[in-house]
Amino acid sequence: MSQHAYPQEQIDAVYRAIYERRDVRHFVAGEIEEKTLKRLLAAAHQAPSVGFMQPWRFIRITSHDTRQAIHALVEKERVATAEAMGERSDEFMRLKVEGILECSEVLVVALADRREEHVFGRRTMPEMDLSSVSCAIQNIWLAARAEGLGMGWVSLFEPSELATLLKMPEGSQPVAVLCLGHVDAFYDKPMLSIENWAHRRDLDELVMENQWQELADHQDQPD
Amino acid sequence: MSQHAYPQEQIDAVYRAIYERRDVRHFVAGEIEEKTLKRLLAAAHQAPSVGFMQPWRFIRITSHDTRQAIHALVEKERVATAEAMGERSDEFMRLKVEGILECSEVLVVALADRREEHVFGRRTMPEMDLSSVSCAIQNIWLAARAEGLGMGWVSLFEPSELATLLKMPEGSQPVAVLCLGHVDAFYDKPMLSIENWAHRRDLDELVMENQWQELADHQDQPD
Repeated sequence: MSQHAYPQEQIDAVYRAIYERRDVRHFVAGEIEEKTLKRLLAAAHQAPSVGFMQPWRFIRITSHDTRQAIHALVEKERVATAEAMGERSDEFMRLKVEGILECSEVLVVALADRREEHVFGRRTMPEMDLSSVSCAIQNIWLAARAEGLGMGWVSLFEPSELATLLKMPEGSQPVAVLCLGHVDAFYDKPMLSIENWAHRRDLDELVMENQWQELADHQDQPD
Repeated sequence: MSQHAYPQEQIDAVYRAIYERRDVRHFVAGEIEEKTLKRLLAAAHQAPSVGFMQPWRFIRITSHDTRQAIHALVEKERVATAEAMGERSDEFMRLKVEGILECSEVLVVALADRREEHVFGRRTMPEMDLSSVSCAIQNIWLAARAEGLGMGWVSLFEPSELATLLKMPEGSQPVAVLCLGHVDAFYDKPMLSIENWAHRRDLDELVMENQWQELADHQDQPD
């Protein structure tokens, strides 16, 4: 064990949050205290970022009308997604995929404008700024779970339409509608596993050595 | 406080990992036990993924020659990046940006092939699979920090060249060379802050309400 390791109960707490975090779509009433929300945003801001560019921007939605308008955009995309899905269309439409109108807080997370000024770590892969924002969102997710709050990441929207709604400048891009709030209970498995949409693969199928190996064809099995 | 909140010491442990995680480029000798590496990979596999598609693939590099070849690709891109940087080129070349040859374990993390089969949450933003992989990497990062191990995410490479080296199939894409290993000490601030490459912005500059607001022009200040 490393001399820099945390005490075992702290290590366990980190893994607990990692294992118990869920993509939540079912919320119950209740407010999130300002200081809690601030802690979650501060945790996001501690994420790694490529070249330390900190490309994340957060738009807190406090307007009822704006929340309704975001929900309408998501609902439109939900239907368009179902149409693109072919044989799983009906099954998809029966899933609950977001809790925008029920949750306590809606945050839109966006990539900043003027990102082209940042070349460090992005010359060949400019999309690394999305990776940084995603790490920031994962920080919120884990911190929220520890705080007993649920979070869902909704990506069912046309980004240009959401950008227009929120008067976002050219070059910026919304990447997430985050729903944060209280829950009756956390799902004991991912909701899409409970609903038999997909199941967790064996880790061994995903780890290779030194070069790509053809993975066995995956058989869905409940985890 | 939520009834589902963890005990305060567990909440504190999650925030501790979030705040003390660093992008590490300075490693010291020492092996990572197999069971520790397995825990880190299992933590990655607990990440959220869009439509539960689990797009992450991990290639563990155990071949000395392959590690050297990866390092050569990164070194080539480091020079190309410096050339693209203009006035900060010399400053960039003085930074230590990776520890590929010194770290205990190198993992290449990639997006899987056949991702086009997954439409859920990706019809308008197919890049959401990169977000999922990034959340998986953040899980490794936080778990490693709790375990006392350092990690660096290197994105300085031409993905098509690394894909060729690792015999990756069409449709897949490497997104990270992860360096994992032991450290003398964790930086007390991000290394790029210590080196005055950039500094952490005030969180207040990054949070808006209901629509985009022009942010004050940022003045770099040590954090």
